[in-house]
Amino acid sequence: MTLHTFQPTRYYTTLGSHEPVLRIADGDTVETTTVDARGYDARGEEVAARFNAQTGPFYVEGAEPGDTLAVLLERIRPNRTHGWSSTMLAPNVVDPTFVPELPWPADGNQLLAAWHVDADAGTARLLSPDSALGGLTLPIQPMLGCFGVAPAGGQAISTATSAEHGGNMDYRGFVAGVTAYFPVFVPGALFFLGDGHALQGDGEIAGTGIEISMDVRFRIRLLKGKRSRWPRGEHNDAIFTLGNARPLDQCVQHATTEMVRWLRDDYGLDGLSASILLGQAVVYELGNIFDPAYTMVCKLSKSLLATRAS
Amino acid sequence: MTLHTFQPTRYYTTLGSHEPVLRIADGDTVETTTVDARGYDARGEEVAARFNAQTGPFYVEGAEPGDTLAVLLERIRPNRTHGWSSTMLAPNVVDPTFVPELPWPADGNQLLAAWHVDADAGTARLLSPDSALGGLTLPIQPMLGCFGVAPAGGQAISTATSAEHGGNMDYRGFVAGVTAYFPVFVPGALFFLGDGHALQGDGEIAGTGIEISMDVRFRIRLLKGKRSRWPRGEHNDAIFTLGNARPLDQCVQHATTEMVRWLRDDYGLDGLSASILLGQAVVYELGNIFDPAYTMVCKLSKSLLATRAS
Amino acid sequence: MTLHTFQPTRYYTTLGSHEPVLRIADGDTVETTTVDARGYDARGEEVAARFNAQTGPFYVEGAEPGDTLAVLLERIRPNRTHGWSSTMLAPNVVDPTFVPELPWPADGNQLLAAWHVDADAGTARLLSPDSALGGLTLPIQPMLGCFGVAPAGGQAISTATSAEHGGNMDYRGFVAGVTAYFPVFVPGALFFLGDGHALQGDGEIAGTGIEISMDVRFRIRLLKGKRSRWPRGEHNDAIFTLGNARPLDQCVQHATTEMVRWLRDDYGLDGLSASILLGQAVVYELGNIFDPAYTMVCKLSKSLLATRAS
Amino acid sequence: MTLHTFQPTRYYTTLGSHEPVLRIADGDTVETTTVDARGYDARGEEVAARFNAQTGPFYVEGAEPGDTLAVLLERIRPNRTHGWSSTMLAPNVVDPTFVPELPWPADGNQLLAAWHVDADAGTARLLSPDSALGGLTLPIQPMLGCFGVAPAGGQAISTATSAEHGGNMDYRGFVAGVTAYFPVFVPGALFFLGDGHALQGDGEIAGTGIEISMDVRFRIRLLKGKRSRWPRGEHNDAIFTLGNARPLDQCVQHATTEMVRWLRDDYGLDGLSASILLGQAVVYELGNIFDPAYTMVCKLSKSLLATRAS
Repeated sequence: MTLHTFQPTRYYTTLGSHEPVLRIADGDTVETTTVDARGYDARGEEVAARFNAQTGPFYVEGAEPGDTLAVLLERIRPNRTHGWSSTMLAPNVVDPTFVPELPWPADGNQLLAAWHVDADAGTARLLSPDSALGGLTLPIQPMLGCFGVAPAGGQAISTATSAEHGGNMDYRGFVAGVTAYFPVFVPGALFFLGDGHALQGDGEIAGTGIEISMDVRFRIRLLKGKRSRWPRGEHNDAIFTLGNARPLDQCVQHATTEMVRWLRDDYGLDGLSASILLGQAVVYELGNIFDPAYTMVCKLSKSLLATRAS
Repeated sequence: MTLHTFQPTRYYTTLGSHEPVLRIADGDTVETTTVDARGYDARGEEVAARFNAQTGPFYVEGAEPGDTLAVLLERIRPNRTHGWSSTMLAPNVVDPTFVPELPWPADGNQLLAAWHVDADAGTARLLSPDSALGGLTLPIQPMLGCFGVAPAGGQAISTATSAEHGGNMDYRGFVAGVTAYFPVFVPGALFFLGDGHALQGDGEIAGTGIEISMDVRFRIRLLKGKRSRWPRGEHNDAIFTLGNARPLDQCVQHATTEMVRWLRDDYGLDGLSASILLGQAVVYELGNIFDPAYTMVCKLSKSLLATRAS
Repeated sequence: MTLHTFQPTRYYTTLGSHEPVLRIADGDTVETTTVDARGYDARGEEVAARFNAQTGPFYVEGAEPGDTLAVLLERIRPNRTHGWSSTMLAPNVVDPTFVPELPWPADGNQLLAAWHVDADAGTARLLSPDSALGGLTLPIQPMLGCFGVAPAGGQAISTATSAEHGGNMDYRGFVAGVTAYFPVFVPGALFFLGDGHALQGDGEIAGTGIEISMDVRFRIRLLKGKRSRWPRGEHNDAIFTLGNARPLDQCVQHATTEMVRWLRDDYGLDGLSASILLGQAVVYELGNIFDPAYTMVCKLSKSLLATRAS
Repeated sequence: MTLHTFQPTRYYTTLGSHEPVLRIADGDTVETTTVDARGYDARGEEVAARFNAQTGPFYVEGAEPGDTLAVLLERIRPNRTHGWSSTMLAPNVVDPTFVPELPWPADGNQLLAAWHVDADAGTARLLSPDSALGGLTLPIQPMLGCFGVAPAGGQAISTATSAEHGGNMDYRGFVAGVTAYFPVFVPGALFFLGDGHALQGDGEIAGTGIEISMDVRFRIRLLKGKRSRWPRGEHNDAIFTLGNARPLDQCVQHATTEMVRWLRDDYGLDGLSASILLGQAVVYELGNIFDPAYTMVCKLSKSLLATRAS
């Protein structure tokens, strides 16, 4: 039950079987920091390569393929005031015939927006560019866009994308208070984290959230022998599963299948019962529709599971 | 500003340029009834063909192509106690390799579940089949699954599917209190409604909601000269747009494009401003991932639009 | 075995249960004409509405739901010299980020190309616009882009799109010598045809073929009690099935499933045998990736079926 | 212009920046061998891990990011007689509702078919299982299913899938006589090859070709400073490009965009000219619709390019 304080000195832009930066045990807590999507840290210095450079990997003692790693996100807090975001919708989220109506720059390089992020006040205020939005001020919801474990089979998967191991899911539900679960594919699990967003809309449809460096504290639990195939999550009110793929239809397939397995394995619901319940009570959320793999989330209220058990 | 009480005697399973059942004026209110998805009415009698037989069409005086029809859903209330639903997930919402693990009957015909719906108490209780769910009781959220206007060009589009004209969108956000907007494609608009659900999960992933006949009251407003291309909606807290297509990616494209047009035309936001705002604040919901055309909803909080205007 | 010569005087832009223009019998042959996609006839006069106005419907005596209609395309021949095509790739066939690099006109209206079509010589020569292609001359392969039967359930489906009933499949394999098969959904089948192309690339990726009016001769056979679910085709060398949907993945699913059914019903191949054979010998072709429903074709050489039978 | 004979002793199941097994120069030829998809070699011994273990990587002197690597496939010849294939269609290539009608084994493990491959005669004969196909004999078309170069950014991408770097494209057009082109992402390019098929249908819809070990001879040319983004190919009659993604629609987008770039950069065709030509003359082929990334091929006859130039 150790509390580790870890200050990263190198970062990775793939999730793979890299040399661990720290070995931790089941139950340990880690306090660390993450850089923003372009590799800038709390002081605004460029210390890592683009994009979504990861802190870690953390080696979890005893973790083996077939286990599940639980990561309780205890704290995700911007550690500087400068946030930035893109300023144009991604062309893949509008009708193809509408793309020419959007003011895309000819060279593909767009202006970035600047935001003043006040973590104490819990707000982000738009500083530039000038627009009809003026000094738009939004409540922040700090989250991790890209985190997960090393994938199987010696793969090293870019932090641009996501799969069964997690990665760049860009789901705005990964906020403090949530426990994320990942299947373990390699000894030690090798947990990575990065790509903090002070705020992000569903789908990350402009291609970024309000990108910023973060202070993060997380606690690890190792669920020995517990099998899972896709990332899962849980908070006080709901359990959820994530499917990362293209098109969104396939994300729904992965996430729904994983939810059915979860209900079967942990909640005693066979296919018939799970179908009736999910049919009338399931909720889906859109993680991202921008990255190489999109993300959809399948969610079920814990109140329904409690009701059922009574 | 007339209140019409209309009792249907015939029903349609396409939305098309059928003979109107009633002519109404801008501002009028209509009280009527809808049958359930299999054509059974309040008394449990089979009075219409399968599936999603529609009440209407209502001819709106003065409506012409290029206008938008606003339909305020004032009341949607089950008018009997018997509801039914399917009992198996649709095979297209799980991984193809997982389909054989679901207990699909060999002939494709599945058992239906029976629910006791208490509109006063606002609950639906599972009566059968026997399952691990026991007498699961859920709060109802009565909605219309299929409604809209006659499409353009002499088409008659099946109530199984949806498109620019609305139709079988199966979005659980179409509850009482919402105003739905449809582009007008033919003189009189020809408004249809039906397919009430006492409750439905996101995506209608088991292929039905809790299907039931309804008492419905709606009020019509005609927005002359106001152009729209896809169905839209509005309630106290948010505005939203719907895209009906396959795959879900294309639904997102249609809905997002329609939202950008709406923000441009009615809220003074150019492409840059709309991009920045939507990028950090948009919400998507999954209407259905079961019908021939799927539905995704793009939603924006009115508070953000108000903030902006101040 | 009558030969009918039919000169159309009205045209339809939906395939639906319209008043038949002629009643014909099993074995009859019809000689008729079709207008181009914009409704211009052999004399270059605009006689029909846009797009893909259909000749017909032809009522086939005795045809009932559950039968299959066979249409032998005996002759498809341009009946004028002026052909036209679009000049820009459809934005949905290139990467979304590449769309701004294409010279799309701001108003969405693009220039048309003009072609001189010489049916005797079997060539099409590009007349305009001026381009690096000069007077590009291509061998023609006259085909029907849109044809089929009336759909089920009182639907009237736009000639812009396609489904189980056929319609705007834009498959360049529908040339003279091919027999097309359609499921019968309504009494009399109600056969329609139109949208001739002197030539078309796979996918109709610029949105048109070389559009032209045609002289067409076809012979009808009625296959009583033969069930099919999707359009099929056959020529001397191969049998094929068509799936019309979105995305292309779903087209492949429909076409492949229909082929498996065909092999099972007519060629005595169970699921195992069909899987082994198709796995190593199937061919797919891209009909269109432009229309609201895309089309993929699943094809199998007759030589493999002959070999098998021996 | 050296001829290297290389006998592999280790194999990789990712394409990544692994230690080169041989350094070769522009113009060199290599004779080597590949194991089958399950890692069995010419003698039928299991010498490598599953699946699609690769021979290589070969380091090409002077190759740098921004170059293109040309690989002339001079010879691809089965070096044993035992081939095997799967016996069931992949569930994702049929309608989801049809999956339960296929005889999928409950545990997901299916029987393999055995084939006798006679490289001299150029045939594959089905040995087992017993089926309605009897001793079906097919002409072989030996090809490479998985080959390519190391991807960018330190990624190591599984041989199960494909992307810009090539990989498991399973396109049956990669036969002897074809030159394949790959973008160079890392110094030395790092060329890999494996996964030979004696034969494969379009789409690899049963999940395998007739899998077999191969003797392969290839010649390398380095195109300094020539930029490409996706794999390309060329033979006597045509040029082609490959897009690897999901859904197939996106494959078409990648492949078509790459073709437009190729026509622009090497054949002097601007967007207008390329659009007119491709619109009426392009051909698409389906590589695979089984692997995590699907593959579509965009092809253009060289005769059209010659005609144009004259």
